[in-house]
Amino acid sequence: MTIKAYGAHAGDQPLVPLDITRRETGPADVRIDIAYCGICHSDLHQVRAEWAGTVFPCVPGHEIVGRVAEVGAEVTGFKPGDLVGVGCIVDSCRHCEECADGLENYCDGMVGTYNGRTPDAPGHTLGGYSQAIVVDQRYVLRIRHPEADLPAVAPLLCAGITTWSPLRHWHVGPGKKVGIVGIGGLGHMGIKLARALGAHVVAFTTSESKREEALKLGAHEVVVSRNEDEMAGQRKSLDFILNTVAAPHDLDAFFPLLRRDGTMALLGAPATPHPSPQVFNLIMKRRSLAGSLIGGIPETQEMLDFCAEHGIVADVEMIRADQINEAYERMLKGDVRYRFVIDNASLAA
Amino acid sequence: MTIKAYGAHAGDQPLVPLDITRRETGPADVRIDIAYCGICHSDLHQVRAEWAGTVFPCVPGHEIVGRVAEVGAEVTGFKPGDLVGVGCIVDSCRHCEECADGLENYCDGMVGTYNGRTPDAPGHTLGGYSQAIVVDQRYVLRIRHPEADLPAVAPLLCAGITTWSPLRHWHVGPGKKVGIVGIGGLGHMGIKLARALGAHVVAFTTSESKREEALKLGAHEVVVSRNEDEMAGQRKSLDFILNTVAAPHDLDAFFPLLRRDGTMALLGAPATPHPSPQVFNLIMKRRSLAGSLIGGIPETQEMLDFCAEHGIVADVEMIRADQINEAYERMLKGDVRYRFVIDNASLAA
Ligand SMILES: [Zn+2]
Ligand SMILES: [Zn+2]
Ligand SMILES: [Zn+2]
Ligand SMILES: [Zn+2]
Repeated sequence: MTIKAYGAHAGDQPLVPLDITRRETGPADVRIDIAYCGICHSDLHQVRAEWAGTVFPCVPGHEIVGRVAEVGAEVTGFKPGDLVGVGCIVDSCRHCEECADGLENYCDGMVGTYNGRTPDAPGHTLGGYSQAIVVDQRYVLRIRHPEADLPAVAPLLCAGITTWSPLRHWHVGPGKKVGIVGIGGLGHMGIKLARALGAHVVAFTTSESKREEALKLGAHEVVVSRNEDEMAGQRKSLDFILNTVAAPHDLDAFFPLLRRDGTMALLGAPATPHPSPQVFNLIMKRRSLAGSLIGGIPETQEMLDFCAEHGIVADVEMIRADQINEAYERMLKGDVRYRFVIDNASLAA
Repeated sequence: MTIKAYGAHAGDQPLVPLDITRRETGPADVRIDIAYCGICHSDLHQVRAEWAGTVFPCVPGHEIVGRVAEVGAEVTGFKPGDLVGVGCIVDSCRHCEECADGLENYCDGMVGTYNGRTPDAPGHTLGGYSQAIVVDQRYVLRIRHPEADLPAVAPLLCAGITTWSPLRHWHVGPGKKVGIVGIGGLGHMGIKLARALGAHVVAFTTSESKREEALKLGAHEVVVSRNEDEMAGQRKSLDFILNTVAAPHDLDAFFPLLRRDGTMALLGAPATPHPSPQVFNLIMKRRSLAGSLIGGIPETQEMLDFCAEHGIVADVEMIRADQINEAYERMLKGDVRYRFVIDNASLAA
């Protein structure tokens, strides 16, 4: 079955309309008519071949929401008409320790929603900048938000779970003070989720202009990280720091803000290394520097349910498919509050 | 009261015999006749003013064992004749969260056994290269080993607790596989303690010549870290890595050996930074890089009791006080198996 999509033929070319095929709906598959798809920084890096191993044609998109169109004979949890989502993962080995623990994101056989290996044509997975997708039921999420929220739910599938998973893993909640570094697609979700989890939230930004916005997003305090006095005011006070900034920066500015046994988790790998962190800062208070990658399928469902219950969605700006290239340029300039979401109905145009 | 000691008048001078004074034994104090004192790398760095803030005259030594000579009126836990030890800490603020948690090592007001601030003459603490020391009972440890073991017990007060504390904090025990990087004063204790705690122990060394020694110390496996095949054989298998190497080295060689959620703890801060670690290695399996500093007083007692019960002591080479300068030179060449211990009786000569 042929459908319309948006993607690139090479890393140095813009995204253009493409015709792609999806596999027949198998016994365990859910076929989804995609309503909206968020635009993640990873989409841009992958489609522009800035990361190793991009295969073309490349159709990005792993913040997918839509409606079930068809289900296979063995599918039990979904029926046509259901509101569902698909995130960064469409398959995994299903038998390793990580899969057993519901942490498919750490499975060595994890198959990404785009650019992953698959027997389907053309041999690699094609993502959510498309009219439909066929996914094994194990990797399909239920959406309990009102249908009107659907565009703003899309970014929860990557930006939401990528911040939720470390917040939960490092026990952010009532009585804890958490720092969120960077107020962008990931950071704005981090603030909302940490606040809703009951923590005291301190947002860190390099930009004075984001102070008011961060407070509106739910931060209790905002620190402009270039302001040494404001930074000093947070010394040894944070239990956990969620650092959403992938660009190389001085990690040592943040370690002293952690209490004993505090952890700073990085969500992005910089293209060139961060300045080497001072081991002294780790040793003196038994602090940790950690990393976190997306999240597993069960915790993605947990996050979606939590967000539905607490009325949490992303802040989004809707675009048509033919605005994707322009959106990438604006995203690179930080000119988005805070996530672009494609109206996939525009693919039919 | 004046006693004999060994110390330096300046960072560029050798250690020489000195006369120093100790305070009168106060109501909460324990006066200890020092029998033996281990030689730690920190002693050398501090006395040679390679770290900031050395004050002179400097009398190093924080692996102190001996016998109680006198106790103050309020002392309840010790009496003259008891075998006792003093480690790296002789005072702390006693009211912060760290002190309350028995982690005086992380107290901002921690007073080191040498080069720490004190009202006693000459205004800074003087360590265990001396005939006697007066210490508040809160910081005195009980030794339950047989008296004949005393010289080999001394290094437990720093090398022992510095490895014990992270092994316990990161839950090393039965069913866990732990890597010990570096087989020196710290590493040889790390191997012995991890083995006795019931873990599967893999020792990492750059030196083929230490393979047999590491097995004798208790390692189940030894990996020569320059051997890529041996390193690859450990991929994603270790729950925890205790990295005792303070010299700058490639941390990224070790991260891939950690399982998901594994931690590598560094015990030493390098004089110049390690090459900046790859964030990718942290993110892909939610790994952590951490630091750990000595250990608290209660866990030091716990470690000493564990070692007494399991017959664990350090491997030591006894020297006279007038051999300290020579021992430093040998230590810098790695020519010690694995700790020099001063026979403090030789100070009287
Ligand atoms: Zn993403
Ligand atoms: Zn798996
Ligand atoms: Zn030491
Ligand atoms: Zn304290």
